[in-house]
Amino acid sequence: MNKHRAVDFSKVNITGGFWADRMRINENVTLDSVRKRFEETGRFDAFKFDWKEGDPNRPHIFYDSDIAKWMESAAYVLRHKEDKELEEYIDNIVDLIEKNMGEDGYFNVCFTVLRPGERFTIRSDHELYCAGHLFEAAVAYYEATGKDKFLKLMCRYADYIEKVFVIDDSATFVTPGHPEIELALVKLYRCTGEKRYLELSRFFVDQRGNNEKDKDKECHQPAGKYQQDHLPLREQKTAEGHSVRACYMYSGMADIAYECGDETLFDTARELFRNITERRMYITGGVGSTHCGEAFTIDYDLPNETAYAETCAAISLAMFARRMSLLEVDSRYADAAELVMYNGFLSGVSLDGKSFFYENPLSIDLFRRKVNKEANKNEHLPITQRLEVFDCSCCPPNVTRFIESIGDYVYSTSDDTVYVQQFMKSTSKIEVGGKEIELIQETDYPVNGAVKISVKNSKDIKIAVRVPGWCKKYEMNAVNAKECCCENGYVVFECGENAQIDIEFDMEPTVVTANPLVRENAGRAAVMRGPVVYCAEGVDNKEVFALSLSHNLNAEVKDSELFKIPTLSVDGFSTSSDSCKANKLYSNEYQEPAKTKIQLIPYFGFANRGESDMQVWMNLK
Amino acid sequence: MNKHRAVDFSKVNITGGFWADRMRINENVTLDSVRKRFEETGRFDAFKFDWKEGDPNRPHIFYDSDIAKWMESAAYVLRHKEDKELEEYIDNIVDLIEKNMGEDGYFNVCFTVLRPGERFTIRSDHELYCAGHLFEAAVAYYEATGKDKFLKLMCRYADYIEKVFVIDDSATFVTPGHPEIELALVKLYRCTGEKRYLELSRFFVDQRGNNEKDKDKECHQPAGKYQQDHLPLREQKTAEGHSVRACYMYSGMADIAYECGDETLFDTARELFRNITERRMYITGGVGSTHCGEAFTIDYDLPNETAYAETCAAISLAMFARRMSLLEVDSRYADAAELVMYNGFLSGVSLDGKSFFYENPLSIDLFRRKVNKEANKNEHLPITQRLEVFDCSCCPPNVTRFIESIGDYVYSTSDDTVYVQQFMKSTSKIEVGGKEIELIQETDYPVNGAVKISVKNSKDIKIAVRVPGWCKKYEMNAVNAKECCCENGYVVFECGENAQIDIEFDMEPTVVTANPLVRENAGRAAVMRGPVVYCAEGVDNKEVFALSLSHNLNAEVKDSELFKIPTLSVDGFSTSSDSCKANKLYSNEYQEPAKTKIQLIPYFGFANRGESDMQVWMNLK
Repeated sequence: MNKHRAVDFSKVNITGGFWADRMRINENVTLDSVRKRFEETGRFDAFKFDWKEGDPNRPHIFYDSDIAKWMESAAYVLRHKEDKELEEYIDNIVDLIEKNMGEDGYFNVCFTVLRPGERFTIRSDHELYCAGHLFEAAVAYYEATGKDKFLKLMCRYADYIEKVFVIDDSATFVTPGHPEIELALVKLYRCTGEKRYLELSRFFVDQRGNNEKDKDKECHQPAGKYQQDHLPLREQKTAEGHSVRACYMYSGMADIAYECGDETLFDTARELFRNITERRMYITGGVGSTHCGEAFTIDYDLPNETAYAETCAAISLAMFARRMSLLEVDSRYADAAELVMYNGFLSGVSLDGKSFFYENPLSIDLFRRKVNKEANKNEHLPITQRLEVFDCSCCPPNVTRFIESIGDYVYSTSDDTVYVQQFMKSTSKIEVGGKEIELIQETDYPVNGAVKISVKNSKDIKIAVRVPGWCKKYEMNAVNAKECCCENGYVVFECGENAQIDIEFDMEPTVVTANPLVRENAGRAAVMRGPVVYCAEGVDNKEVFALSLSHNLNAEVKDSELFKIPTLSVDGFSTSSDSCKANKLYSNEYQEPAKTKIQLIPYFGFANRGESDMQVWMNLK
Repeated sequence: MNKHRAVDFSKVNITGGFWADRMRINENVTLDSVRKRFEETGRFDAFKFDWKEGDPNRPHIFYDSDIAKWMESAAYVLRHKEDKELEEYIDNIVDLIEKNMGEDGYFNVCFTVLRPGERFTIRSDHELYCAGHLFEAAVAYYEATGKDKFLKLMCRYADYIEKVFVIDDSATFVTPGHPEIELALVKLYRCTGEKRYLELSRFFVDQRGNNEKDKDKECHQPAGKYQQDHLPLREQKTAEGHSVRACYMYSGMADIAYECGDETLFDTARELFRNITERRMYITGGVGSTHCGEAFTIDYDLPNETAYAETCAAISLAMFARRMSLLEVDSRYADAAELVMYNGFLSGVSLDGKSFFYENPLSIDLFRRKVNKEANKNEHLPITQRLEVFDCSCCPPNVTRFIESIGDYVYSTSDDTVYVQQFMKSTSKIEVGGKEIELIQETDYPVNGAVKISVKNSKDIKIAVRVPGWCKKYEMNAVNAKECCCENGYVVFECGENAQIDIEFDMEPTVVTANPLVRENAGRAAVMRGPVVYCAEGVDNKEVFALSLSHNLNAEVKDSELFKIPTLSVDGFSTSSDSCKANKLYSNEYQEPAKTKIQLIPYFGFANRGESDMQVWMNLK
């Protein structure tokens, strides 16, 4: 373990470029849109605790978490932008929480209004998950506004949970069915300094898969895999079960490893991270390949059309990756986070910021859906157009909080070094080597690969620049700084005063192949340019499924106002049905496939121009 | 319509080669094996009509048809081979039928023993289907032995059905849920000369999809498609619903068109045949691409891994094709029958003749089965090894009767011409042009493409030799005969005395591509040699799913004692996982796939050497 310090997004002012644009949409459109959908569906009203049988919008066990994630997102906006109206809106919710919290500190809509007798008896019903999200929201709101009412309420709730689960041991279960509270308690500890919250988190981590009391409280998958319960956490070697639960759990583990210097937890988290990224992750950073249990399956099982790859799961992998990057110097963590950011997470929200995918498939075959319908096959296939709200609407407010805190991913520090993890146009003030330095990134990344890093007050500190895993060729030229070494994927510079590093990452589009053990992609390839995965859509290409890529892409890169990241036109082949003799189903007259240009768009932008066939992986000639 | 006469298998003595071998196994192994399995499962005992609640092997609605198809098969054996024991076995069953037939002529195990009150009230419960198979068996047994007891019993049953369905109109439905009786009644008519049976068959054909009484008796699929009920038969343009029901129905239609000279029925049957063979048929001749309703789906929906392609459905397509070949001169009918014979039907039975596939997939991915199991996906996937008997065991006795009557497919005649439809080592005596000629085929087809046809007493008759659709190059040299014309896929010779035609069909293995609208096969190819489709199995090839074919096959053809048809070794490429950097899930370092030899076996022989991955369609480089 080689601990780094996190640099949180409040230190990183994103001043332009791709993410500034996405944050603008997030703040101006998405946050409000999600709030309105949540209002319409009674989620906010539920906090009044006055729902009665017969009323519409029966409160659901997830409702607290939906509202909490929205509040957390709003708090992140308030961190850098004054908005009295928004603040008042949150204060009103906090007042409702205060009003409706139990004498003992308990707070949960569903289990107070609908099922008061069942408090902490149904392990799989998300009580502690909801609590965790409320804790995260409370910390975020305190850090944004300095107002501590919400935080104090949540401390009371955490105290009550400690009493029930540790002191009295009076719940029917020991660890939550849906992890989340573990990482949230660490946040609460870091914010308040109260060690008991760290200890409570550690208790949940230690007890998981270890306690007889939980054994008969399993659901869905055998042997507890569904909720990461099949083994004591420290003995788990492969990522199993519900993928969001898994990565929230692993994030909590990484937090405990960090705070407690727990080497075995760190080793386990490392092994799990490798299992995911080397065996169970889509090229987009999506994880959880089946809708059955929204779960990880087995190594190399990564079907494209039925990919589940939940938006929340991609986010949770980025969260896990970021925590791991604070535990050892290894650029693979930031590589994974970057893959998620520009692909498997970002596809979860429409370009206009209004609608969402829960599932993020790597192929859409409208024909297959037609067959499914007409032949009554009842096959589970992902939807083809984004929706504004879901019954289980965990993803939308997860998107809003992730985008708003994207600055979290840019830097980390060791005693004398700033690690540049991600490239975004930004200015940052960071404590390192006992002083505050100012870092300015000038870049249009990932529109192109040029990044200029200027550092004020840089004397005697080091700047370690990550070389992305996708990058085959780069140049770095330093002024007032000297390259001194390479360290696990980072080029390290010793700086003098006012150091400047000019970087050029070669962003030539390339074909990417998968390990042939991924059977669906054997003989196929995808196209990436920089960290961005591309796809072919029917709206741009005739007969998407008749296309083959040439391994010499000969790509033309075109600016795109719509996607903000270039589209590509690449060399390929088409065995279009035009070339087929009329009505011939099979032919033994071999025909050379016709050369064609394949139009590719960034994967995250698919399904923004109507319903369309789509493919990421294409045959490779 | 240009009617031909059928030449039935009793006229065609198969004297050696591939089919003689399969018939030997059928007679020596399969027939007995199916009988034993049917005995063990109480199917024969059911004919004693003494089953009581609590006994094992509760009679099923299909049991009569299972026994009937077995009896029909056994009768076909008796046609050319004396076997007193076998004859006695059948006579005993006939005695049971006589004993247990109702006073009124009704015979059905299930509806007499278990559900006497429900006679002819449940349209989908196979009563008339069972009757049809019994009629076929009775005709076959009469023709084999001259004994008419069984035939007379079945005439009584047919008379009773006419009374119930036509004269009294007393059943709750008008046409059967599972077609079959239509074609069987035509057989009964041809055998007895009793026109009422033809009229009864025509009644069922005319009423189908036309009668209000049937409207609310539909099952499974909406609008009656499942049982070819959605429209009056003459208005149907596409093959719909349960594929065996469909092709039995179309066979019955073709029979009625033939016997009644019904041009609109002929046109409809022709259009349906084209829809199947040009849009909805696997390269193997398999049909019915989904297990949901064992049905046809929509044009070009031909998934490989989940192909249903029931063995019975392939047989029923051959039956339909043979009937169509008697209605017009077009080699495509015999092409389809040949495809079925050597591929999608033949895969239904093991090489040793003991076990059967119900479903005949074109790909077996053991990994997908592992995922299905471990991730609790509950996806329907075909079994990977043949079984000796099924609960619904329609296929095994359909296999035995089809093989035993394969000679039906070899010839047809017009007034002065013998059409050579299939190529099999055989001697035949055929009436044509007012005299009997003798035709001798000397050939190892399809081991190679050489066929020598000698005709005795051939003066003034014509021989029309089919040029198979798969054949790109051939030579025909005639002695005492002269090529006079080509007619819809046949080369026609005017013969003198003792004509002889030496044929050499070029059997160079070729890649075959599918219409790109078959999305699963876009960019892929299969290999055929002559009428035989090939596949790659894991037992011969490392990582079957990492293989790509070269379009220059450069094939080495090797004799095979096991398959009796050569295996192939062809040029291809492999993106084997060996070539992958350890633990690399994705790579942007393009690697030329390694050249390799791909070992191919005849498709019908797959899964005869243990459980294995298998692919027919492979990527094409």
